[in-house]
Amino acid sequence: MSTYSKGLEGVVAAETRMSFIDGEKGVLEYVGIAIDDLARNSNFEETVFLLWNTRLPKKSELEAFRGDLRSRYDLPPSAIDALRHIPKSAQPMHVLRTMVSSLAFLDAHPNANDLPSARDKSLTILARTPTIIAAFDRIRRGLNIVPPRKDLSFSANFLYMLNGEVPTPTMERAFDVCMILHADHGLNNSTFTARVVISTLSDVYSALTAAVGSLRGPLHGGANEEVMEMLGEIPSLDAVEPYVMGKLAKKERIMGFGHRVYKAIDPRATFLKTLAKQLAADTGNQDLYEKSTKIEEIMAREVAAKGIYPNVDFYSATTYHSIGLKLDLFTPMFAMSRIAGWAGHIIEQLDGNRLFRPKAEYVGPHNEKYVPIAER
Amino acid sequence: MSTYSKGLEGVVAAETRMSFIDGEKGVLEYVGIAIDDLARNSNFEETVFLLWNTRLPKKSELEAFRGDLRSRYDLPPSAIDALRHIPKSAQPMHVLRTMVSSLAFLDAHPNANDLPSARDKSLTILARTPTIIAAFDRIRRGLNIVPPRKDLSFSANFLYMLNGEVPTPTMERAFDVCMILHADHGLNNSTFTARVVISTLSDVYSALTAAVGSLRGPLHGGANEEVMEMLGEIPSLDAVEPYVMGKLAKKERIMGFGHRVYKAIDPRATFLKTLAKQLAADTGNQDLYEKSTKIEEIMAREVAAKGIYPNVDFYSATTYHSIGLKLDLFTPMFAMSRIAGWAGHIIEQLDGNRLFRPKAEYVGPHNEKYVPIAER
Repeated sequence: MSTYSKGLEGVVAAETRMSFIDGEKGVLEYVGIAIDDLARNSNFEETVFLLWNTRLPKKSELEAFRGDLRSRYDLPPSAIDALRHIPKSAQPMHVLRTMVSSLAFLDAHPNANDLPSARDKSLTILARTPTIIAAFDRIRRGLNIVPPRKDLSFSANFLYMLNGEVPTPTMERAFDVCMILHADHGLNNSTFTARVVISTLSDVYSALTAAVGSLRGPLHGGANEEVMEMLGEIPSLDAVEPYVMGKLAKKERIMGFGHRVYKAIDPRATFLKTLAKQLAADTGNQDLYEKSTKIEEIMAREVAAKGIYPNVDFYSATTYHSIGLKLDLFTPMFAMSRIAGWAGHIIEQLDGNRLFRPKAEYVGPHNEKYVPIAER
Repeated sequence: MSTYSKGLEGVVAAETRMSFIDGEKGVLEYVGIAIDDLARNSNFEETVFLLWNTRLPKKSELEAFRGDLRSRYDLPPSAIDALRHIPKSAQPMHVLRTMVSSLAFLDAHPNANDLPSARDKSLTILARTPTIIAAFDRIRRGLNIVPPRKDLSFSANFLYMLNGEVPTPTMERAFDVCMILHADHGLNNSTFTARVVISTLSDVYSALTAAVGSLRGPLHGGANEEVMEMLGEIPSLDAVEPYVMGKLAKKERIMGFGHRVYKAIDPRATFLKTLAKQLAADTGNQDLYEKSTKIEEIMAREVAAKGIYPNVDFYSATTYHSIGLKLDLFTPMFAMSRIAGWAGHIIEQLDGNRLFRPKAEYVGPHNEKYVPIAER
């Protein structure tokens, strides 16, 4: 038996200047600013500037940055053509992973890893990700693709391309807050993946493609889809108690609770709960919100003493549903936001890189001989 | 300043039953069998069985396994169509990464992660990888695609699809030995990437796509291309000495020397040197081999005391060149072989999974406030 820390739990694997997590106290900061402060006062475009420059922009800097971002919304015609050739039954996360990878074909210098090039490629991929997701969703629904509008913010433009109409200010704001909350979160698995891949001095496309693939997993970004599926399995508010107690009795996991890092409530969950409540009131669709709070109550009664609290996935499911997003777009939404964090970590990794190359503990046989096949 | 091990050097991150490395003694074993023994006596198809089952197959098992592998060589027509739409200028590793990702579209259950499904998907992707690489190379050269021949071995079939003719037994054997030597190598970066990604319970496509992206980097699989470029920069045998001494004086790296793990000679390099010598003699193209041995001599004289020896990339460059492969196919060849190891590690990871989720050391500011933009 070896004594290594399985899953690298507790092992420090990189330094960062972007996000700070105190899991005991339930604190998350981006560059020293509490996530709650940012969610209330900032917007996603500004938050990306903050993460990539480790400071808030001056007014002129923000205008230049978002102008640059918005100018890159368009997908090249060959990428639109590639999207049209993808089977309509394909899952959006597999589509996003493949399309991010294929953007390298359209780059004359896809492997350039100097810091200005890495930032430039990151900005382009960030700008095009909403376009990829919205265009594929329109294609699979048999609708015309809605070209991006460069006068709209990152969040408003996405909802516009998806639905064909400009979102209300409330919807835009709710969605934008989700984008802020999901943008970065220490060395989560997909961010770690991006840093591991870029550490071979590979390229931004390879690293971001890999991160999308990691995020897809149900133990990571895929969890919010599973929360929604769980809510769908519970037919009514009265059915919540027997459902949850039944799961707990069988020691089955309640999706959206517990997190490797947090032993207190996830501050993103707190903010999302408020947002979900507002949206439920605005849209008159209280059902999911009420089921969610009921689940949270029961879990608080039964397992909060064990440090199991709602995580970011729990109320983001309800929020995305209220915004009108289809289930299989939940994880792509997470990716659309987290690309900001991934790219920031790629830039940090390239600035003082050291190849990730841990050791394996070999637990198989030794000193075997190749036995000729006739003698086996 | 934090005291973490940058690049996770020396940190044990997983257990494996596949390959064992003793970097001090220059030992590499697959499931306890010395790499030299396998390279002399086994073949790639059998080696894949060995890695995936941690034992050598009986005759009937090997026949069934390779029959199954060979039956999956064909690419579906939609994948061929996708290859034809890729710009001819695209780099093969970007193409391979994108195509492996896109194979998920053609799978009715791409996310199935039970062990039989993971093995099944791995076998299909392994079988199709040579077809992807050869077909894209033919397309970009303006040649007809050569469909696979299921009566040929993995290695012979690849060279047949690439060149349009069945390779000589010597060529097939040389290539097959390269495939054996590159199949697995502990927790190298791409293998670690595959394990990190699958640990979110993502999927085999996501994990293998990520690994291809990692391998592309010049600090990993991309190194053999850089060795070849270096050999191309040296105009003659007489120019080797001033070239190498000039680099060393400027403290520049000589490509193909040194390895994080080996402080003795890499046993794969030893075998490849023998192979490169034979091929040079067979093809009458001694030039590169002679330059390579001259570089090795100078390096032994100058830096071997520091534990810097030729690594696997050094003689694989000469070998692949002698086989007639173009420079930008060197790393795809590495991928074609290493997919065996990646898939084996994915299966090991799924069998007793724990999410990889290390910590970051936060080194930025704390307790900052969101300052309104007008006040910045």
